[in-house]
Amino acid sequence: MAAISAQDLLAQLQWRYATKEFDPAASIPADTWDALEQSLVLTPSSFGLQPWKFLVLTDPAKKEALLAHSWNQRQVVDCSHFVVFAAPSAIGNDTVQSWIDCLASSREVPPETLDGYRKVMERFLAALDGEQRLAWAHRQIYIALGQLMTSAALLGVDACPMEGIVPAEYDRVLALSSRNLTTSVACALGYRADHDKHALLPKARFPRSEVIEHHA
Amino acid sequence: MAAISAQDLLAQLQWRYATKEFDPAASIPADTWDALEQSLVLTPSSFGLQPWKFLVLTDPAKKEALLAHSWNQRQVVDCSHFVVFAAPSAIGNDTVQSWIDCLASSREVPPETLDGYRKVMERFLAALDGEQRLAWAHRQIYIALGQLMTSAALLGVDACPMEGIVPAEYDRVLALSSRNLTTSVACALGYRADHDKHALLPKARFPRSEVIEHHA
Repeated sequence: MAAISAQDLLAQLQWRYATKEFDPAASIPADTWDALEQSLVLTPSSFGLQPWKFLVLTDPAKKEALLAHSWNQRQVVDCSHFVVFAAPSAIGNDTVQSWIDCLASSREVPPETLDGYRKVMERFLAALDGEQRLAWAHRQIYIALGQLMTSAALLGVDACPMEGIVPAEYDRVLALSSRNLTTSVACALGYRADHDKHALLPKARFPRSEVIEHHA
Repeated sequence: MAAISAQDLLAQLQWRYATKEFDPAASIPADTWDALEQSLVLTPSSFGLQPWKFLVLTDPAKKEALLAHSWNQRQVVDCSHFVVFAAPSAIGNDTVQSWIDCLASSREVPPETLDGYRKVMERFLAALDGEQRLAWAHRQIYIALGQLMTSAALLGVDACPMEGIVPAEYDRVLALSSRNLTTSVACALGYRADHDKHALLPKARFPRSEVIEHHA
């Protein structure tokens, strides 16, 4: 059953925009943020493998330390919550085993009963080299980015996805490399400043007839 | 302003699952599908460049032709609408120019006034080789996949994201290569069959404390 009308969903997707100026005084309420974290956790992924970690930065000093590595985009420091999406730099059969253990525990079955599924995932990974596994993880992370932005729009929270960052510097500042993690992308969340004139620009997209093709 | 309560949003994200068996007799109503197409079109992307095309298949013969190249997963044929996400295999300055023209038209300004923005995008692309541009496009497409799945869940529509496909065969069947397009991923949408026991399995995710890390 629908939880929202199509009209209300589209109104929120029209309302959202890549926020250029956040109101630094506006914090996301704890219960709203809690829901956004849950929406991150609930993100679907290939095989359910969830190849990600989400770092939530609210510490002003840590946000400040990332500013110079973010093309000096003020959203990093002015937002309420800054999320850094990190991918595991080594994905292998131990990742698969952790997921099988989690799944078995959730279903209250012995892990061995999921051996067929485990083998499918192991075969999938075996066909990829390290770089391809990482590229695959990055793509899964972008599903999470999409789900987060859509969820935020529905809850009336502004967001700015940020690819304009220097991942290697993020890895250094956040000490990710030693933990076998590597930065993928980031997203600033909070509330738009009243004076952000970008909020008033008409939303532009290629015409629907150009991007959607029907094979009916 | 929020369009939905956090509780209702999360209930829908809990309700959704990667549908294994669709009811082949259940079609998505036209107005609901129209909203889902609009949500695809409204997907945010890096620089707004929208490096994608969405093929919507409802033709049974075309869906059937893809079945053998989809690990024989019946969702392809049993779903109501099957979306193939394709990336442009050549992204360059003409892509940027098209986008600048679209943006200028939407803002009712001469394209030249956006020259600074155009140059930023051209520099961004110039730093990437062909393979990196394609990988970047694939990642943007996964934002669209995320937004589509979240939107579908909110409208009570079931979905199954499908990476288990043979992109080269999809390209051939859909004659994409000659149009400089290449298959990225797919998603089946419709309504779950009553007998799909996967709908009853508890939703499993790694514990929130493992995937989210606070830097407060």
